[in-house]
Amino acid sequence: MATQKTIDAKLISVIDALSDFGSLQNAYHHTNDGLPFPSGTSLLEIVELTREILFPGYFGNSFVDSNTLKYHIGVNVERLNACLSEQVLAGLCFDGYADEAELEQKKEKARQISSDFISQLPAMRSVLMTDVVAAYNGDPAAKSFGEIILCYPTIKAVSNHRIAHALLKLGVPLIPRMISELAHSETGIDIHPGATIGEYFAIDHGTGVVIGETAIIGNHVKLYQGVTLGAKSFPLDADGNPIKDLPRHPIVEDNVVVYCNATVLGRITIGEGATIGGNVWVTNDVPKGEKVFQSKVQQSSK
Amino acid sequence: MATQKTIDAKLISVIDALSDFGSLQNAYHHTNDGLPFPSGTSLLEIVELTREILFPGYFGNSFVDSNTLKYHIGVNVERLNACLSEQVLAGLCFDGYADEAELEQKKEKARQISSDFISQLPAMRSVLMTDVVAAYNGDPAAKSFGEIILCYPTIKAVSNHRIAHALLKLGVPLIPRMISELAHSETGIDIHPGATIGEYFAIDHGTGVVIGETAIIGNHVKLYQGVTLGAKSFPLDADGNPIKDLPRHPIVEDNVVVYCNATVLGRITIGEGATIGGNVWVTNDVPKGEKVFQSKVQQSSK
Amino acid sequence: MATQKTIDAKLISVIDALSDFGSLQNAYHHTNDGLPFPSGTSLLEIVELTREILFPGYFGNSFVDSNTLKYHIGVNVERLNACLSEQVLAGLCFDGYADEAELEQKKEKARQISSDFISQLPAMRSVLMTDVVAAYNGDPAAKSFGEIILCYPTIKAVSNHRIAHALLKLGVPLIPRMISELAHSETGIDIHPGATIGEYFAIDHGTGVVIGETAIIGNHVKLYQGVTLGAKSFPLDADGNPIKDLPRHPIVEDNVVVYCNATVLGRITIGEGATIGGNVWVTNDVPKGEKVFQSKVQQSSK
Amino acid sequence: MATQKTIDAKLISVIDALSDFGSLQNAYHHTNDGLPFPSGTSLLEIVELTREILFPGYFGNSFVDSNTLKYHIGVNVERLNACLSEQVLAGLCFDGYADEAELEQKKEKARQISSDFISQLPAMRSVLMTDVVAAYNGDPAAKSFGEIILCYPTIKAVSNHRIAHALLKLGVPLIPRMISELAHSETGIDIHPGATIGEYFAIDHGTGVVIGETAIIGNHVKLYQGVTLGAKSFPLDADGNPIKDLPRHPIVEDNVVVYCNATVLGRITIGEGATIGGNVWVTNDVPKGEKVFQSKVQQSSK
Amino acid sequence: MATQKTIDAKLISVIDALSDFGSLQNAYHHTNDGLPFPSGTSLLEIVELTREILFPGYFGNSFVDSNTLKYHIGVNVERLNACLSEQVLAGLCFDGYADEAELEQKKEKARQISSDFISQLPAMRSVLMTDVVAAYNGDPAAKSFGEIILCYPTIKAVSNHRIAHALLKLGVPLIPRMISELAHSETGIDIHPGATIGEYFAIDHGTGVVIGETAIIGNHVKLYQGVTLGAKSFPLDADGNPIKDLPRHPIVEDNVVVYCNATVLGRITIGEGATIGGNVWVTNDVPKGEKVFQSKVQQSSK
Amino acid sequence: MATQKTIDAKLISVIDALSDFGSLQNAYHHTNDGLPFPSGTSLLEIVELTREILFPGYFGNSFVDSNTLKYHIGVNVERLNACLSEQVLAGLCFDGYADEAELEQKKEKARQISSDFISQLPAMRSVLMTDVVAAYNGDPAAKSFGEIILCYPTIKAVSNHRIAHALLKLGVPLIPRMISELAHSETGIDIHPGATIGEYFAIDHGTGVVIGETAIIGNHVKLYQGVTLGAKSFPLDADGNPIKDLPRHPIVEDNVVVYCNATVLGRITIGEGATIGGNVWVTNDVPKGEKVFQSKVQQSSK
Repeated sequence: MATQKTIDAKLISVIDALSDFGSLQNAYHHTNDGLPFPSGTSLLEIVELTREILFPGYFGNSFVDSNTLKYHIGVNVERLNACLSEQVLAGLCFDGYADEAELEQKKEKARQISSDFISQLPAMRSVLMTDVVAAYNGDPAAKSFGEIILCYPTIKAVSNHRIAHALLKLGVPLIPRMISELAHSETGIDIHPGATIGEYFAIDHGTGVVIGETAIIGNHVKLYQGVTLGAKSFPLDADGNPIKDLPRHPIVEDNVVVYCNATVLGRITIGEGATIGGNVWVTNDVPKGEKVFQSKVQQSSK
Repeated sequence: MATQKTIDAKLISVIDALSDFGSLQNAYHHTNDGLPFPSGTSLLEIVELTREILFPGYFGNSFVDSNTLKYHIGVNVERLNACLSEQVLAGLCFDGYADEAELEQKKEKARQISSDFISQLPAMRSVLMTDVVAAYNGDPAAKSFGEIILCYPTIKAVSNHRIAHALLKLGVPLIPRMISELAHSETGIDIHPGATIGEYFAIDHGTGVVIGETAIIGNHVKLYQGVTLGAKSFPLDADGNPIKDLPRHPIVEDNVVVYCNATVLGRITIGEGATIGGNVWVTNDVPKGEKVFQSKVQQSSK
Repeated sequence: MATQKTIDAKLISVIDALSDFGSLQNAYHHTNDGLPFPSGTSLLEIVELTREILFPGYFGNSFVDSNTLKYHIGVNVERLNACLSEQVLAGLCFDGYADEAELEQKKEKARQISSDFISQLPAMRSVLMTDVVAAYNGDPAAKSFGEIILCYPTIKAVSNHRIAHALLKLGVPLIPRMISELAHSETGIDIHPGATIGEYFAIDHGTGVVIGETAIIGNHVKLYQGVTLGAKSFPLDADGNPIKDLPRHPIVEDNVVVYCNATVLGRITIGEGATIGGNVWVTNDVPKGEKVFQSKVQQSSK
Repeated sequence: MATQKTIDAKLISVIDALSDFGSLQNAYHHTNDGLPFPSGTSLLEIVELTREILFPGYFGNSFVDSNTLKYHIGVNVERLNACLSEQVLAGLCFDGYADEAELEQKKEKARQISSDFISQLPAMRSVLMTDVVAAYNGDPAAKSFGEIILCYPTIKAVSNHRIAHALLKLGVPLIPRMISELAHSETGIDIHPGATIGEYFAIDHGTGVVIGETAIIGNHVKLYQGVTLGAKSFPLDADGNPIKDLPRHPIVEDNVVVYCNATVLGRITIGEGATIGGNVWVTNDVPKGEKVFQSKVQQSSK
Repeated sequence: MATQKTIDAKLISVIDALSDFGSLQNAYHHTNDGLPFPSGTSLLEIVELTREILFPGYFGNSFVDSNTLKYHIGVNVERLNACLSEQVLAGLCFDGYADEAELEQKKEKARQISSDFISQLPAMRSVLMTDVVAAYNGDPAAKSFGEIILCYPTIKAVSNHRIAHALLKLGVPLIPRMISELAHSETGIDIHPGATIGEYFAIDHGTGVVIGETAIIGNHVKLYQGVTLGAKSFPLDADGNPIKDLPRHPIVEDNVVVYCNATVLGRITIGEGATIGGNVWVTNDVPKGEKVFQSKVQQSSK
Repeated sequence: MATQKTIDAKLISVIDALSDFGSLQNAYHHTNDGLPFPSGTSLLEIVELTREILFPGYFGNSFVDSNTLKYHIGVNVERLNACLSEQVLAGLCFDGYADEAELEQKKEKARQISSDFISQLPAMRSVLMTDVVAAYNGDPAAKSFGEIILCYPTIKAVSNHRIAHALLKLGVPLIPRMISELAHSETGIDIHPGATIGEYFAIDHGTGVVIGETAIIGNHVKLYQGVTLGAKSFPLDADGNPIKDLPRHPIVEDNVVVYCNATVLGRITIGEGATIGGNVWVTNDVPKGEKVFQSKVQQSSK
């Protein structure tokens, strides 16, 4: 009786090749023993817990009783604090650490950041409610605030952004970007955590929207699907690498509307109340109140 | 031995602030005791069950035996009816209800709607098969109908749309919109449940497509990725709120093709057999058979 | 005591109608007894296992110890081989088979293909690392290679593409396309498995990108969100069906950049080092080093 | 190409036979539409929630912070109330109901019983703590109260008994018995919910212990494994059926010890402080303080 | 920065020692490539499916509608057939096989056995209903047949036995024994699959009951907890190994009652209508109608 | 519209009562922040991993290929080490700790114990194989070693015992007892981790077996179901508490057989080769080779 192997000598040698540290190089992350590593699953839970805390009943446990609401928020805050402290530490240690003393400092810093983040949640809820109002006012198809919170991708994307932005401001590396990408995958809206966004912000439909790292957006701004607020180009340093952290994305002032698939590039300013039409390519400042449209299309009857 | 707390006094006061009903306002939905609430998880199951019933073997249990097929469909229909009745009731009660008698009426109405919806499934399967044929005929890369059903996002998006549209016609609030958003997140195709769509409808690739609430689409229409059939603007009422339910999206007649990233806005008519080129911005009627393209691009050699 | 039925006679007759084989036709796939059927869940596992093997620690089990890394890779390769053999067989049998002898041949072929695919993984890791480098060099916001691997959708989309392309080259039907669609749904980037793509390839943001079946892309090419490398039109055969397998998508040479929402159609060549601006529509060859931009937009102050 | 069926005509006829209502008779329970049915899974959750509420940290979420303990108990009580109301209703409706009005009464009764049960939990915790003390004092191998709560099957069996007994006293049919059987399966200890048991009760090891429906057990009683407190025989009524609800199990007074595998049968009284030796069969009253042992064994050397 | 390993050189050498084939010997089962292996999880599903089919509503999906009952039974039979064919094959191949031809024979045999087993289910349901009646009639505490089916361990143990015995009679190795052990772990009742058991069989409480391989039990027999129907001793062959398959357990005729913890050993006959008292040790035939009790116990007052 | 609450004021006050720290006392375990707590779920995984490592293929992943066996063992050892280190630490900290320095010592000790335990696994496998041989030789119904490993509860109980005993010897509190109770619940066999057990040990059927903390069992010993090796009584200290750790359970020498339901109590010696009959109660030494049986039973014909 001969036993047939599913993994023969050829595949064993492939396993050897794949385990070779020379071949692994940057494909393999050298972590320190026992330290948490950034985890997409844990970040997903962090986002869900935060949404549950901010909008009780709309997310998570769908039944909420006013008599017991506080117990649910208490349990969720405790869990959020535990998960977030761990993931913040994962972010702080992603590039390695020197010694035990430094590690203890990072653990203490992670706990502090998590606590500071949670303390911002009441204010974050208030701002997000202005985004709900903006989405409601901007869409004749919307029937209630509840529908906006439950269905509209703008709320999911902007929630994640406000979470990610707050963590970035508190000094957390990497983790904010991962949180943004969760919303990007879920909604097709890609907002860099570094972007600064005012109140009453709404994105309609949203698929394909890109908002760059140094963009600054005022209050009452509305974007449609496919809008890019991007960089035109970026200067290289002496080694030919892009110089990091330069302001290179647009400033969009209050009450601006940008229609679908418009591309706005570079550190330009779209003045207060301006309107950018669909499918246009804008690389220069647009004055206050101005409207920018695509040039005429050609029509031909066969 | 001192016990270190993870939730200190500061976080306890944050929990108090987050549980304050003043702060909660619209962020908190006041439901009635024991009533079902719209549930994304349940709607996902409803969509999966419907896909399984319509295309047995392609979705859900991947092995199907012609001798036992009916048992599977029977069990799935029973489960669908239970889930759908509950979610329809959740939709009907989303804005609250007055008294026990009204609630009983809504329960009865939910049961009736679920039953009527399921009765439409045989016809829905026939229409969706025309969409499969259209996708197959329109793509040289497609190898079989089976490949279309298994892989093409257009089938997922249009299935959800036909489900959502049928529920909307039967008078269900909110739920149809949530079903549309499930497909939007899965495929990047955003079709409002109110849109009317004919047979043999296909969307190629699809990411970024938006079809508005009052759009009317004929038979044998094909859209490419990034196409918007949107509203140009919407009139406000005396209070400055958008007037709901006005026809404000395009009518697209039979045999029209709209190429990628084209933006078609307002209650205009794209006449039978017309072609809209990629990346154009169309806000006026396009006569029957006409072709509309972007104006010439600039080329420069460095 | 009367028992109320949830499924009444009307729904029983709907179940009958839905189970009618006449009505089922192409909606129902006739598989052979006991054969595996393409499974989205299994393909998802295949993609995850491959990502884990290629980038240990970044995907899957987030803790990796250099002493035990090989055990993890060994176990994952074994599991990958089992899943992949089955799904390849599912692909090979999707259109049916004639007899037992042919089936045995297909089983042997599936095993061989799976083994050949796994043998390509060390080389695939090397190529994907060039894509990581390209994404890092092209984005001033990127902080480390690790961030690119963990967060950037381009890595997910291009990983799936390189997996799908390899399987297609090994002669596997259907399965590669399903793997591409998994990435399409996750990232909004739609790359046909047939496309040929060189080293150091990066897509920034990515939502809405479409790359067609016969596209050929050189080294060091960069695309932005919303770019289409598509077909202009396709010739029909005598029966009015599209002729399959004709080259109909662009050739993009080394060092080309295509900015967001540009549409490049047909079997044209974008010459080495050329730049395609955003939102343009290109249907003719672009010479080496040339830059193509959208014509001026109209601006009007109210 | 012939498709081989896994379910052939023979099995289809077996399915018909198994679905025949004549054959089903008592094997099939006729429930009323939409009513909850007793669910082992839900009862398991009810037991786990109650254990978590009574012994926080030892069961369920293993980390407990004194600052947030109340939130956890609040959430668990809410969940327990929901599950228990439903299962009590299932018990109340198990034998059917006459009309809508009666059903409403049963729903109200189920809510009331659940609320009454929960109100007894503080007292139940106190009594169970006496059982913990008894187990600790009775076992030289025990190291701490915590070990008793975490490991000793007596605590699991007696917790379930006190829960089941309380529900029985509140008038719930069937459900208490199912809760007892959960402990029976988990620990091998079979206590009928009807049995009355005092404080400081301990069962050592426990496998095989049986305590009958009408047994009455005083305070500070200890049983060892395999002890039966059973019925000797039971009178039949005119139809030859056992007469229900007659006292037929032992009364065991305070401070009695019953050693392993002893069998005590009938409505006899084991007087205060008596000792029953292992493996004996007792069917008559045992006076206060008396000791009962097995007669001498035979020894033989071959 | 030093990386601390969790698996050091010492543990690596332990892994080597544990993987050494010399050390593995009989601890490691050499299966043939791709063959199913006996799986506890799969057998658990087989038992649950069979219980669901036999007692619809009481096990599995707790809601059953007479209009859709057949669909559920059909789906469950299909699933049972698939699982059972595989596990029967696992049993048939447990001791290895010679060549492809023999394997094909075993596959065909497994399919046949599974089909034959399922064909016996209608009759098995009838017999099990007699066991339900016996348990009901024998327990004054029982309130309904439904309670017996839902709660009484005798039904679980005897169901598994009747399943295991049927498979054994159909020539399946190993699998029947594993099914018996599932019930043993769940109920504490250990019935060897080889035992022959008549109708109207009941075990009260049941923990500790043991029924040996060659026991033969008539109709209307009742056992209490802790009863052993075992072997007295077993002859050894020339090599000192026990001789297999000799009749060595009791024959228990109709209408016998055996009280708790009685031990009945050897190929003796307990005559019709006899009663065996608790805690006795019986190794000789007991005539028809006779009653056997333990000798008097000693009582002493301190 | 009035909202009906599920949790009314009465239940809110019950929650308050249940959260009162006075009421909680010993029902609540005060752990230190961030320390692991003994977890039944984690211990279950530890037992399963150890069984998988010891008997590859029989437990866990049921398919094993000799080419990849080592990878599976390596991954399992790594996981076992991580889980076990944590649970050992939980055991070491169960009674609290004084300060950071002491905690660091306990962490280091937990790592050391886990490593030492794993180093004993090769020897533990050898001993367990002798138990397999003993069970096989002692049961005419057994068909193969594989059947013993897969089905026989003795192997599960004795495996857990050998694991628990090894951990106890390494100085781990509490955890060993929890591991023993897992087997007790699964098999009905209750072996205290402190018991010393030789090679070739077998328990037939096993339900109800109890082996006490200070029992010492030689080689080639066989027990049947229901056997107790217990303590007769235990001396109390001045405060009336049992004195811990005194030898109080039997010494059972080599080649002893104890038949079912026998009770052997106290620090007595059962001499080499002795036989203890079923259902007897033994409290004195039994000389080498002697046989002890129950006295005659009474028979009466009605």
